[in-house]
Amino acid sequence: MTMNSLTNAKAGDFVEVSGMVHNVRVTKWGGFLILRKSRGLLQCVVSDPALLEGISRECAVTVTGTVQDAKIKDKAVFYNTIEIAVQTITILSRPSTTEVVDMNALKFGDEETLLRFKFDNRQVTLRNPRDMAILKVQSTIAKAFADYLVDHDFTQIFTPKIVSEGAEGGANVFRMDYFGKQVYLAQSPQFYKQIGVGVYERVFEIAPAYRAEKHNTSRHLNEYISLDVEMGFIKGQEDVMALEADLLRYIITTIGTKCAHELELLGATLPKLEASIPTWKLSEVHEILFNEHLTEDHRGEDDLAPEEERAICKYALEKYGSDFVFVTHFPSQHRAFYAMDDPTDPTLTLSFDLLMKGLEITSGGQRMHDEADYRRKMEARGMNPDNFRFYLDTFRNGMPPHGGFAIGLERITACFLDIANVKECSMFPRDINRVAP
Amino acid sequence: MTMNSLTNAKAGDFVEVSGMVHNVRVTKWGGFLILRKSRGLLQCVVSDPALLEGISRECAVTVTGTVQDAKIKDKAVFYNTIEIAVQTITILSRPSTTEVVDMNALKFGDEETLLRFKFDNRQVTLRNPRDMAILKVQSTIAKAFADYLVDHDFTQIFTPKIVSEGAEGGANVFRMDYFGKQVYLAQSPQFYKQIGVGVYERVFEIAPAYRAEKHNTSRHLNEYISLDVEMGFIKGQEDVMALEADLLRYIITTIGTKCAHELELLGATLPKLEASIPTWKLSEVHEILFNEHLTEDHRGEDDLAPEEERAICKYALEKYGSDFVFVTHFPSQHRAFYAMDDPTDPTLTLSFDLLMKGLEITSGGQRMHDEADYRRKMEARGMNPDNFRFYLDTFRNGMPPHGGFAIGLERITACFLDIANVKECSMFPRDINRVAP
Repeated sequence: MTMNSLTNAKAGDFVEVSGMVHNVRVTKWGGFLILRKSRGLLQCVVSDPALLEGISRECAVTVTGTVQDAKIKDKAVFYNTIEIAVQTITILSRPSTTEVVDMNALKFGDEETLLRFKFDNRQVTLRNPRDMAILKVQSTIAKAFADYLVDHDFTQIFTPKIVSEGAEGGANVFRMDYFGKQVYLAQSPQFYKQIGVGVYERVFEIAPAYRAEKHNTSRHLNEYISLDVEMGFIKGQEDVMALEADLLRYIITTIGTKCAHELELLGATLPKLEASIPTWKLSEVHEILFNEHLTEDHRGEDDLAPEEERAICKYALEKYGSDFVFVTHFPSQHRAFYAMDDPTDPTLTLSFDLLMKGLEITSGGQRMHDEADYRRKMEARGMNPDNFRFYLDTFRNGMPPHGGFAIGLERITACFLDIANVKECSMFPRDINRVAP
Repeated sequence: MTMNSLTNAKAGDFVEVSGMVHNVRVTKWGGFLILRKSRGLLQCVVSDPALLEGISRECAVTVTGTVQDAKIKDKAVFYNTIEIAVQTITILSRPSTTEVVDMNALKFGDEETLLRFKFDNRQVTLRNPRDMAILKVQSTIAKAFADYLVDHDFTQIFTPKIVSEGAEGGANVFRMDYFGKQVYLAQSPQFYKQIGVGVYERVFEIAPAYRAEKHNTSRHLNEYISLDVEMGFIKGQEDVMALEADLLRYIITTIGTKCAHELELLGATLPKLEASIPTWKLSEVHEILFNEHLTEDHRGEDDLAPEEERAICKYALEKYGSDFVFVTHFPSQHRAFYAMDDPTDPTLTLSFDLLMKGLEITSGGQRMHDEADYRRKMEARGMNPDNFRFYLDTFRNGMPPHGGFAIGLERITACFLDIANVKECSMFPRDINRVAP
């Protein structure tokens, strides 16, 4: 019997359910067998203690029995309105140790030791309902992202991760030998998704991206999943921002519906995304925060200070009821060369960051579409256009006005679920010290 | 106006449509403007030649006009029952060359020269309706794969491509320096998807996989997209094969519905997948083909000869009306160490290949779930279990009976569409000589 049919099971139904034994409690009158299913736990009641003989944690079993009504308060229990009155238990397989890892029984001195143990033993610590819930939400975000975009005429593309030029320049790339040639792992599908716009008008990709950054923080991963979007025939970056807002609204609604159990288990409250997201230029953010005495004076600065990211999000939530804030018009010298300059002030770009609860979760903007603009900006930055032959050839052969954005899947999962360390939102995180398991 | 609303457009509707200019033909009375949209071409009729002044191939334009009925025979035209009677044309951007690449106008001496030009200039040759159609079908296959599996209680996982051990041994892996450690690009998510079964019962992944194979053939890519499935609580490999057959049936039906235009343009006929796929053991295939005088005598051989792959597919099509054939029970020494041995004959494994039109498109089977079996088989093969600590720890902590399979996305796309060279089914193919564009 699959999980779905169990979801619809009613008191009195006779069912056959397989699962891993998450826990066993033997009592005088019988006991409890707690099965772990794909969404969480299921309680099975055993009235004959003999049935539980030889059953231990992490045995794979098939149980038959009758569904009965229940009211279970443990939030890790997915099937909290039913339980199974067990008739038979069949053991399908057994662990080869009597001491299987049990996250709930282990005590750790501090959060760092706990996390290190978790990541060192990820192959089994993932079997803990809290970690299962995090990655279940992550997979639901990825699916909702694809569903929304396909529904809005976007084509999913698959672009190479082995590339001969780093998209955003030579720093922070992993280098590799490829049959005698030096190649790189792609930092972003930026060039390829722009090329995709010349083909399919609107494209998206869900794929790993690589940053060889040496700092080991709770906000960074060296390998992460990038949710990339690029759309053509835009009137301005406002079209891109509107699409992103609508996409996020769809994702949040979907998680609210499909992952209610996981949200409750994690104690997470989904962010508020109103009909329109408060939007300010970078210079306006500096002004507002200074005038309202919310931060020090950052007027004239080229970027948002971390205290400003937090303060403007707090301000937007209190004043406009929004957990999201768009900040636009970052200085040209702080954005990638392909950003479109603001025609009314060429020191600025038609670019945006999306902040949520004090953290940047997206960068995006309009891109240039004219070959001459690319050459001019590359040359001003000391880049050699000859190293970007195929990229420039795309614009030489015509490109519509276009723009896009990228969302880090692990980071948005962490933000949605209020998880402090983004590594907890990666199944097998990679950082400067970690390439296993 | 988006593509979808144009699809529903009726004669008499006033519309605004944006697209790239795929072609312009000026006549005495006016001319034709052929727009390229995400699914194919759209014909616009211009009654005033002045409107076409300055319009050339690969300009991005917005056209307004009235929909009128049409009957267009050119298969590259997606909107073949309507055309637009143009009122205005607005140029949004222009190419910076007057000689944009036009695949249809170019002549090539042979197929190889054609393909080399295509791949060397992929950033613009992808704008040709035939190549667009191939990758559109590919993206539809990937989406249908995910839709089906999510609907059947599978959880999508994202596993690392930077790994510290090659899953299937040390040969044919790309090596890389990772902050002073030697690491590899994952050849397959095999270990991680099995770990995923211990967590979520049923998992799938859509991600790149890497093979450092030096042969440059029409069937191989060094970077490809692997569609991976792994499911727990199976009764035997038959459960895995039944799921794969049902999944493929769903994918084929979906493509038939959603990609009818692309199939017609490419002249492709979808394969026949009957209610049950003909299934023979490897030894039976040798016997049948010998007894029917269809191949030379391969009895006793450890694998299928290429002529057998073709012959058994032809036989299954003629006799059972199926383009698919399952071949099972490959010898243990020819399969990966994690394959479950057949309890009735331990020289064989509970493994299968799925053949289609003479080509292998999947390998799969039941895996071992007992730690002792892994250690025994590793030692018999001279592998050091200490190099697989986290993998073995998974089984030590208990694992249900499980199995799975992997499908190469580019290869199945090529098979479905009768494309001779799998590289045509990769947006930016990577082979021993090619890492750009």
